[in-house]
Amino acid sequence: MKYVLAADVGGTNIRTALIDPAGNIVSEQRQQLNLSACGNSAQHIVATLVSFLQPQAKQATAIGIGFPGFFHGQTGVLAASPNLPALQELPLADILKERLGCSVQVQNDALCAALGEFHFGAARKSDDLLHITLGTGVGGGLILQGKPLYGEGGMACEFGHLCVNTNVDAALCACGKRGCLEAYASATAISFLYHQRTGKTLDAFAIYQSACSQDPAAMHLFSEAGRYIGEAMATAVKLLDIRHITISGGVTGAWEILQPSMIDALEDHVISPQQGHVSVSLSTLKDQGGILGAASMAMGLI
Amino acid sequence: MKYVLAADVGGTNIRTALIDPAGNIVSEQRQQLNLSACGNSAQHIVATLVSFLQPQAKQATAIGIGFPGFFHGQTGVLAASPNLPALQELPLADILKERLGCSVQVQNDALCAALGEFHFGAARKSDDLLHITLGTGVGGGLILQGKPLYGEGGMACEFGHLCVNTNVDAALCACGKRGCLEAYASATAISFLYHQRTGKTLDAFAIYQSACSQDPAAMHLFSEAGRYIGEAMATAVKLLDIRHITISGGVTGAWEILQPSMIDALEDHVISPQQGHVSVSLSTLKDQGGILGAASMAMGLI
Repeated sequence: MKYVLAADVGGTNIRTALIDPAGNIVSEQRQQLNLSACGNSAQHIVATLVSFLQPQAKQATAIGIGFPGFFHGQTGVLAASPNLPALQELPLADILKERLGCSVQVQNDALCAALGEFHFGAARKSDDLLHITLGTGVGGGLILQGKPLYGEGGMACEFGHLCVNTNVDAALCACGKRGCLEAYASATAISFLYHQRTGKTLDAFAIYQSACSQDPAAMHLFSEAGRYIGEAMATAVKLLDIRHITISGGVTGAWEILQPSMIDALEDHVISPQQGHVSVSLSTLKDQGGILGAASMAMGLI
Repeated sequence: MKYVLAADVGGTNIRTALIDPAGNIVSEQRQQLNLSACGNSAQHIVATLVSFLQPQAKQATAIGIGFPGFFHGQTGVLAASPNLPALQELPLADILKERLGCSVQVQNDALCAALGEFHFGAARKSDDLLHITLGTGVGGGLILQGKPLYGEGGMACEFGHLCVNTNVDAALCACGKRGCLEAYASATAISFLYHQRTGKTLDAFAIYQSACSQDPAAMHLFSEAGRYIGEAMATAVKLLDIRHITISGGVTGAWEILQPSMIDALEDHVISPQQGHVSVSLSTLKDQGGILGAASMAMGLI
């Protein structure tokens, strides 16, 4: 049996899996790996990745990696890496290929999550896909006419920074602008807005539990987040005429409160021939989307 | 010399040209042709088109047509045709090919204008393009990673219906929704808003002239339109990470008033790594963009 090795490199963890050609995870590992602690040295970061991947690479025909950075198309060269600036313009895929002795594909983590849904998840039979990740932040990946969209600077689908509220008093986003989707629909924003409106400090999960107990402020926050997500979805639909949207991430735990206002807003805001023709699904892969997307690259599916 | 025949079918006129392989217009014709007067009969519409195109088709190796409708990808089958509902699902390209005896490509008119800029105009050296048409309405076409984006329903790039004002009292668009770009930046909207704000009835060109004479209401309207266009551009840049935008259409006559607020708003609203990296140009092809885009299809450039 020929396996590929897939890796999902996060801010503080790395997760790897050997995956068979049908997309089944044969074995899996998870380990703390704080690349930011590598003293912003590209050499140190690469050495850390290599030492972790090397033992498993021996069993694999190819390697796919989801990475927190932005890449120049399919080259595996980092266009930008906000949390690991030492890596900028580093040909990461080529370096890892040389060190590990087999083919390596590296791509942005949110785009990998989209590829996972597209090849193995809720969007398997579609030709286009917007995949949205609702977690600490809000991100996404786009697949159009069967191909991933990279963007000229490797930054396609900054979905969390679409503007959903143009009022002067709109919520302030971490990016410095007002009215971004992320300032309403990320776990961070939900916790921040709840504190602002009630004076209480709770994390997004506790606020969700509070909403389930009919706390009006909590219910309103999730319903408002759903509405803004739906409006941002409609923007993507009007611009790209896509018909498939999937969502993953911790905030989707509140799906039954988010979903009604989200779908209402989406249907209200698309143009009339698109109404009723956009499917919105929860990810069927949950937190395995990224790693399966990385695997799909190693399998040569893109 | 081998020519292609390109046609640009408008609401009340048809324009055709024989074009050489370098994109030079060798001969050109323009004629009144009101397809809406064909009694909503597909047969009558097709016969009218054929009788107009036939004499010129004899000199051409292939035909490309820009048409006011939405098509299923590159099939030449109409997905929707709001002004000519009889044509819905008609395989227009195949029918014309059979009647005219040579290869025919048909595509949405705004997408043709984008293809014209991409192959022969201001975006010749780029790999991506958002082309915006600012006229009676606001439309557009997208080229991503070197390929035109059609959209699942053939309706990609409904740029005029991006929401740029989320206030409850935002301007009402012809589509029935509030806050669409078209409700601020089309010639129709500029005329309507000027009347609403000053009580005077003028067309967009007269309002532009008034703005040039320092009429504050007129100056404010164009500057506001520019700001909203820039914000909608930023939405496209954040979603697609495109770096090239071109604009054509009658409203661009007011470029020197539109441009400063447009560029300010674009730069204010994109994410920081994109700032300073998006080029916005006036079309160099003016009203020949559509017909040159139609020619590019006949030449097999897409």
